[in-house]
Amino acid sequence: MTAVADAFDWGLLEPAGRAGSVVSDDRILDAMVELESAHLAAWSSLIDVENTATLDATALDRDALLRESRRSGVPVVGLAQALRQQGGTLVHQGMTSQDVVDSALMMVSRDALTGARDALRAAGRVFAALAREHRGTPFAVRTLSQEAETTTLGAVIGGWLDVVSSAVETVDVAEFPLQLGGAVGDGEAFARLAGRPDAAAILRRRISAALGLADPGRAWHTDRSPVLAVARAAASICSAGGRVGRDLALLARDGVATPLHGGASSAMPHKKNPVDAVLLVANGLRVSGPVAVLQVASLSYDARPAGEWHAEWQAWRETLRLAAESASLLQNAADDLVIQARRAPATTTTAPRGAREVDAAIARFERLREGDRS
Amino acid sequence: MTAVADAFDWGLLEPAGRAGSVVSDDRILDAMVELESAHLAAWSSLIDVENTATLDATALDRDALLRESRRSGVPVVGLAQALRQQGGTLVHQGMTSQDVVDSALMMVSRDALTGARDALRAAGRVFAALAREHRGTPFAVRTLSQEAETTTLGAVIGGWLDVVSSAVETVDVAEFPLQLGGAVGDGEAFARLAGRPDAAAILRRRISAALGLADPGRAWHTDRSPVLAVARAAASICSAGGRVGRDLALLARDGVATPLHGGASSAMPHKKNPVDAVLLVANGLRVSGPVAVLQVASLSYDARPAGEWHAEWQAWRETLRLAAESASLLQNAADDLVIQARRAPATTTTAPRGAREVDAAIARFERLREGDRS
Amino acid sequence: MTAVADAFDWGLLEPAGRAGSVVSDDRILDAMVELESAHLAAWSSLIDVENTATLDATALDRDALLRESRRSGVPVVGLAQALRQQGGTLVHQGMTSQDVVDSALMMVSRDALTGARDALRAAGRVFAALAREHRGTPFAVRTLSQEAETTTLGAVIGGWLDVVSSAVETVDVAEFPLQLGGAVGDGEAFARLAGRPDAAAILRRRISAALGLADPGRAWHTDRSPVLAVARAAASICSAGGRVGRDLALLARDGVATPLHGGASSAMPHKKNPVDAVLLVANGLRVSGPVAVLQVASLSYDARPAGEWHAEWQAWRETLRLAAESASLLQNAADDLVIQARRAPATTTTAPRGAREVDAAIARFERLREGDRS
Amino acid sequence: MTAVADAFDWGLLEPAGRAGSVVSDDRILDAMVELESAHLAAWSSLIDVENTATLDATALDRDALLRESRRSGVPVVGLAQALRQQGGTLVHQGMTSQDVVDSALMMVSRDALTGARDALRAAGRVFAALAREHRGTPFAVRTLSQEAETTTLGAVIGGWLDVVSSAVETVDVAEFPLQLGGAVGDGEAFARLAGRPDAAAILRRRISAALGLADPGRAWHTDRSPVLAVARAAASICSAGGRVGRDLALLARDGVATPLHGGASSAMPHKKNPVDAVLLVANGLRVSGPVAVLQVASLSYDARPAGEWHAEWQAWRETLRLAAESASLLQNAADDLVIQARRAPATTTTAPRGAREVDAAIARFERLREGDRS
Repeated sequence: MTAVADAFDWGLLEPAGRAGSVVSDDRILDAMVELESAHLAAWSSLIDVENTATLDATALDRDALLRESRRSGVPVVGLAQALRQQGGTLVHQGMTSQDVVDSALMMVSRDALTGARDALRAAGRVFAALAREHRGTPFAVRTLSQEAETTTLGAVIGGWLDVVSSAVETVDVAEFPLQLGGAVGDGEAFARLAGRPDAAAILRRRISAALGLADPGRAWHTDRSPVLAVARAAASICSAGGRVGRDLALLARDGVATPLHGGASSAMPHKKNPVDAVLLVANGLRVSGPVAVLQVASLSYDARPAGEWHAEWQAWRETLRLAAESASLLQNAADDLVIQARRAPATTTTAPRGAREVDAAIARFERLREGDRS
Repeated sequence: MTAVADAFDWGLLEPAGRAGSVVSDDRILDAMVELESAHLAAWSSLIDVENTATLDATALDRDALLRESRRSGVPVVGLAQALRQQGGTLVHQGMTSQDVVDSALMMVSRDALTGARDALRAAGRVFAALAREHRGTPFAVRTLSQEAETTTLGAVIGGWLDVVSSAVETVDVAEFPLQLGGAVGDGEAFARLAGRPDAAAILRRRISAALGLADPGRAWHTDRSPVLAVARAAASICSAGGRVGRDLALLARDGVATPLHGGASSAMPHKKNPVDAVLLVANGLRVSGPVAVLQVASLSYDARPAGEWHAEWQAWRETLRLAAESASLLQNAADDLVIQARRAPATTTTAPRGAREVDAAIARFERLREGDRS
Repeated sequence: MTAVADAFDWGLLEPAGRAGSVVSDDRILDAMVELESAHLAAWSSLIDVENTATLDATALDRDALLRESRRSGVPVVGLAQALRQQGGTLVHQGMTSQDVVDSALMMVSRDALTGARDALRAAGRVFAALAREHRGTPFAVRTLSQEAETTTLGAVIGGWLDVVSSAVETVDVAEFPLQLGGAVGDGEAFARLAGRPDAAAILRRRISAALGLADPGRAWHTDRSPVLAVARAAASICSAGGRVGRDLALLARDGVATPLHGGASSAMPHKKNPVDAVLLVANGLRVSGPVAVLQVASLSYDARPAGEWHAEWQAWRETLRLAAESASLLQNAADDLVIQARRAPATTTTAPRGAREVDAAIARFERLREGDRS
Repeated sequence: MTAVADAFDWGLLEPAGRAGSVVSDDRILDAMVELESAHLAAWSSLIDVENTATLDATALDRDALLRESRRSGVPVVGLAQALRQQGGTLVHQGMTSQDVVDSALMMVSRDALTGARDALRAAGRVFAALAREHRGTPFAVRTLSQEAETTTLGAVIGGWLDVVSSAVETVDVAEFPLQLGGAVGDGEAFARLAGRPDAAAILRRRISAALGLADPGRAWHTDRSPVLAVARAAASICSAGGRVGRDLALLARDGVATPLHGGASSAMPHKKNPVDAVLLVANGLRVSGPVAVLQVASLSYDARPAGEWHAEWQAWRETLRLAAESASLLQNAADDLVIQARRAPATTTTAPRGAREVDAAIARFERLREGDRS
């Protein structure tokens, strides 16, 4: 793969960017080529043409892709041309740009959210253990910034566990469907070329199976519900991270819990900043932007709208990047957390309270499906 | 109920506001009183105190409520005081403001989305019939504003059916849980006053059953996942409406389909404006605002944050209002639609295309659970 | 004026709503009638027809307005009909709905922001006095939630003064232009009916002078820059309020400064909540929603778009309502603030620091144009 | 400069990305080093220490920067360390991370918006010529998607000119101030180290002059008004682009005006897509996301908040990237536009209308300050 002359974003302003590299342009390009490969295999088989070509993402000229992308407004026109030189005229046949972009982003969505789920569960295990440990540690919580009543530190941490469980549940109901509809979404090019009306349905079944995507039984070119659903799962992860991050920053403020390592300051070497918490809050705020854009972009029309679909790409990826980062940050924050229990600002030493809520939160977390999604 | 001196919003800028009146302040106040009544009954029963008082929303002084709301920042402090005068000291006992506001908004959410689902299904039935009728009507669709390929008008309408089905599915997975946690969310006031540690759990079960809400088995004061889930269902309805509205406006532009009645212009009496389509688009755009606010407000902290929860109320209600309006507008637009099939800008007269996609969309719609949710 | 059967929003969920009543539907309707009156006078004069009719907002049937608004999608069609019965056929002649709605919202914008400016300046005077008073009070400020370095409490309050000054400056550059363009924005109906090509220009000059609006010298039907500019001024006020509100909530948390009165809790009578601060934060978060909607709605097209303009109305008003509330809340918070200077968590007792910054902030505030805008 | 192992964004999903490369990470890093160099020169001079060191951005190890950025949550800690190895201990002395990031983003903002202004004016010149040419071409415009009245094509194009002028005016009032405040924003480190209380003021004057930034006379660490103002200017450019893009897409739909070149489709070789228009619409929608984030992030607190400031960086840059792209796309679209005047769907052949509005729009554009900003 050739070098890109002017990479316009390599992470300078994205401190947790490495955790989000699962949604990098490189990965998305790989997914596009995987989709084209799976189509090529399924399509060749369906129309009974032997095809031994393999498509190679590493051989692509990225500068050429970018030039063509500016010309046609979509990265797929140039990609299809380049891949046809590798694999012949059957490459991309019957498909449209949207099939490639949407499917690739779904593949990347699945990978990003599955990975994030693992990190969330890891954080959840730490929180469950801490909640159990501090099930009886008195803690005077606040409402509207003012001391309210004394509950337990375990109840506070059980609250974190609950948002983690909620985020995991949101990922668990997410679906990642293949997109395949052809030029105007009706799959007719496949039917006509293959000479059978069920060609699109067969291809959807085979390609989705090959790629590990769901078979939606339809094209969803102009029904953006699947995109909104994925974005919402991603946003839920950022919400969970941001909600815990806010508490972690406040506990660090009050000296109740601090990061073991923390981050340095350029001006004040003595400081130990709760960097994970800060970035969790930032990501929680940031995700509202792409979520709003995807909401607006869901107002599709015609067989492909003049702008709304294009507006989705970066916003969609951004929700995933932020989710992947937030899950990683949350896991790191959990691992790095030191409770200063004795400094808990308890004003009373009454018996443990909120214990049932703690137990309920732990039980809920433990009921979540175990293991990886795959 | 006394008059409000200066009602600051009676619908002047909300043409479809009547359809959204299911989320009016009056309804929300009713729901708050229903919640307090259900609590009073369940709580009296639990602590074995006979209570024959009934709470009466119509007797409340709304001006007094508003004055107290400004003072305490929440409409519940004054409400609880007023209701205690009706029902005695057990009213509101053990609860906190958030229990009342969140639960009432969940009751109103359920009503609004259930009603919207009915309207969506009514629109879907019209679209299914039209899609079937125009299963073979050639139609040259556009992508990126340019004529692309000829498919059928049935395939286009099948696309509308698909977004309606997606919206209905989103409503069908929505849950409307009771909120009950007391001052800091741990339910301890109930336990202490009732002398049994499972008091909050029992109350949640009984009150949610009485009100037709889900029993979440926990307080979700600082886990705003249930709010986000409801808002997302509402936003999906607005997306569906906006996506169809865009198409309807464009079909009216091209003369392919027009409203039978349409709306008048203040300057041009000859015009017949596709008013439903226009308002569907407007609502589709508008809902992105409260969705973004709810996303940001989900970054809760402490046992109740200093602003984020307060920021939710109007945004939450707004998503419901827009959804109720959009579903009603969509039903009306479907009923009022006149297809000018002969004017379909078909450039070819090839055989019907996209028929399988049409059939799949109809079958998907028909698989949706029938009848009302209740 | 007749009663509205089901006023769908009377302030239940808007604790500071009274302060925002300057943008109520009643006021907007009044402004619409004022605009129609000014047009009637100017137009009659231009075409040399004697007209002694006066238009009376109080005689309008609001229920009838709402019914017609649902039918035509805009509140003006019914209004123009009703006013013609009062004032004859010259009423509304040559204008279009957008002229009335946009101009009325500009009048209300001017009133709301002018009033907010006064409240901001009142808050600023308090902050200037406090900053001067605590110019030498050591205060250990935080960055990223951790204690950073010791500066003065005066420097902190000077920071509040700076955002207040910035908000005032934003209001000071805001313009409130008349909208007048007729059916498609070219003013030709006026020209044709009056028999002179400069009719629209003359009317703009006269009507804007009569109403105290700016004369833009053009119609801005599809150039939404004036709307964005007003919304931005409103949002700046909410930013300023939210930024100070965050600090006030944190100072109340740390016991450095507390509200003299504060608000009550429904569950915890001992609490004194910083209600103004909480609502300031809420409004600061909330305004991001309508700002995003207005941004999206600025993508106008044709001579009036099929949804984007309709999407603006409530969002536009919402920014104003939040700004009016925030300015009032900020003034109240300033008046109600009690500094617990001795409790300032100073870790050192070094000489006053940041004094120059304090002086600069005070000087900047004092350079702002004095008095009312009018 | 070493290679970055996994550049996570090289433009695959950003077809117009090249036009936005003025805000790439590379440029921002360059600006950071320029700021540090200007500080080093001014600071050395102020404290009377000879310093001949020059700082070299090309010698920086970007991988090391990213590693340290993850650790401290900000790219400046590692940068300052690396630059001290080049320039000695005076590098960065007295400054804080926020001084570097904010100032660098202001430098990049100035460059991006100044360049965008040139492109806007180039587009405006084309539109002015076209508006003049079609001052008398009858054109039946639409409102709410329906044919309304006949005006001229010149009036339509004059409407585009007006939004371009509005965007240019927004850029013209934008200011790009230096950020300089030190650890907690009070400039005291400079005063203490230099032994003079006016050290920060002097440095601000000298450094801002050296860098071509405005001297704000204060630190604005927690007053984000300057950021909001810049973002708003950027958003105005995207609004203007999106508004014209919508019209261009609709004119291409109706065959009134088409791009000379247009873009290819991966499925339909016969198509000539209005790619510039499509991307203009997409950018117009996209900018609402970062604008909403910046609004929320403006709720600063303490001397630096725990997340809000970090949430700004990418959103701020994103508004600039979209603005730079949109201005370039608009210029390209104007240059590539072919009016099919004879196909204008005029239903009447009345005399030219709207001519005064056309002339006013052209005159307004021509009154804009000529030449570059610099």
